[in-house]
Amino acid sequence: MRQHKRFITVEGGEGAGKTSVLKDLHQALILEGHDVLMTREPGGSVIAEKIRDVILDPAHKEMDDRTEALLYAAARRQHLTEKVLPHLEKGGVVLCDRYVDSSLVYQGGARGIGIEEVRELNHFATEAFYPGKTFYFDVSPEVGLGRIAANKGREFNRLDGESLAFHEQVRATYLTLAKEEPARITVIDAERTQDEVLRDVLQKTRAHLG
Amino acid sequence: MRQHKRFITVEGGEGAGKTSVLKDLHQALILEGHDVLMTREPGGSVIAEKIRDVILDPAHKEMDDRTEALLYAAARRQHLTEKVLPHLEKGGVVLCDRYVDSSLVYQGGARGIGIEEVRELNHFATEAFYPGKTFYFDVSPEVGLGRIAANKGREFNRLDGESLAFHEQVRATYLTLAKEEPARITVIDAERTQDEVLRDVLQKTRAHLG
Repeated sequence: MRQHKRFITVEGGEGAGKTSVLKDLHQALILEGHDVLMTREPGGSVIAEKIRDVILDPAHKEMDDRTEALLYAAARRQHLTEKVLPHLEKGGVVLCDRYVDSSLVYQGGARGIGIEEVRELNHFATEAFYPGKTFYFDVSPEVGLGRIAANKGREFNRLDGESLAFHEQVRATYLTLAKEEPARITVIDAERTQDEVLRDVLQKTRAHLG
Repeated sequence: MRQHKRFITVEGGEGAGKTSVLKDLHQALILEGHDVLMTREPGGSVIAEKIRDVILDPAHKEMDDRTEALLYAAARRQHLTEKVLPHLEKGGVVLCDRYVDSSLVYQGGARGIGIEEVRELNHFATEAFYPGKTFYFDVSPEVGLGRIAANKGREFNRLDGESLAFHEQVRATYLTLAKEEPARITVIDAERTQDEVLRDVLQKTRAHLG
């Protein structure tokens, strides 16, 4: 496993608020003089976008889970080589919304392929290239689902049990990964207000970048 | 590694004549009462065809070698689950023009990713599902390139040295694989006439299917 200090990723389930905080973090780091690329896969790579179109085409109902995992890994590889690595090589900071950990949690855990198998696949795709720091935005499934429901202008439906169990599994898998790699993955209490979370993440990012 | 007896693949470099022989083998096996699917990736799977379009689009000059290997593995996975496995499950014979060995030789060897890495990737894609029998059509690079030139209506150009070295490497890698798995991979002398090769392969296929 190789890590790059200036490669920083943000992870979390739905409703954790990571995307909003990431935007503010991006602005704050620019004001502090960093050359920052904020991105997410497929991130404007023409080839990675084409691959994502194949994954997301609603007509592709026959798509096998492993085909999907291979396509996500292919889009990740292309985004990494076209966007992430060139920006790091010229001395910049890369903030990426989701990376390998998302595949471990969603394809490995939730889809049931197995975390170790998906990890090996992503080692092929990334040549085991990892961020120097990953912030996992942790919220309880109730809070996360409540925020999603609020965004849609409706109250969180307590009968939505399947969704609750799914979110619980996602959270448990993220927390397992964080325990395995405590130096890389920092758990962020994302049930606080957005301002509190931003201040915390910004302070930890400053400490990390040194 | 799992193998299926009625899953038979044909491998070889360009100009080895495998496609013509495969067609005749297909007809002969049908006449002998087998339910035979003759196929090649992406083989009519809508999703696999879309993936192949991404690989082959000449506009995609930025494509990384590992992205390409991941996309071939994704198309293979989809073709396997949609076409190959269902036909085997209903008792038929599947004749497939190229499979994992081609990726080992071309992406692993010729592209330089490494045979073991590409093998692991393909284990993920196929869950280590292999043919019961693979015929490797062996010709010297001179004969193979001579046949290609003849098809194009021009004489084989002796100055085409880069192509010659490439074909030599492809052949050497196939022969290495055949040495590693002599029970699965049978080397066929494909410098003989098409009729001689067909008779040989048909006899060996009968013996294999029992």
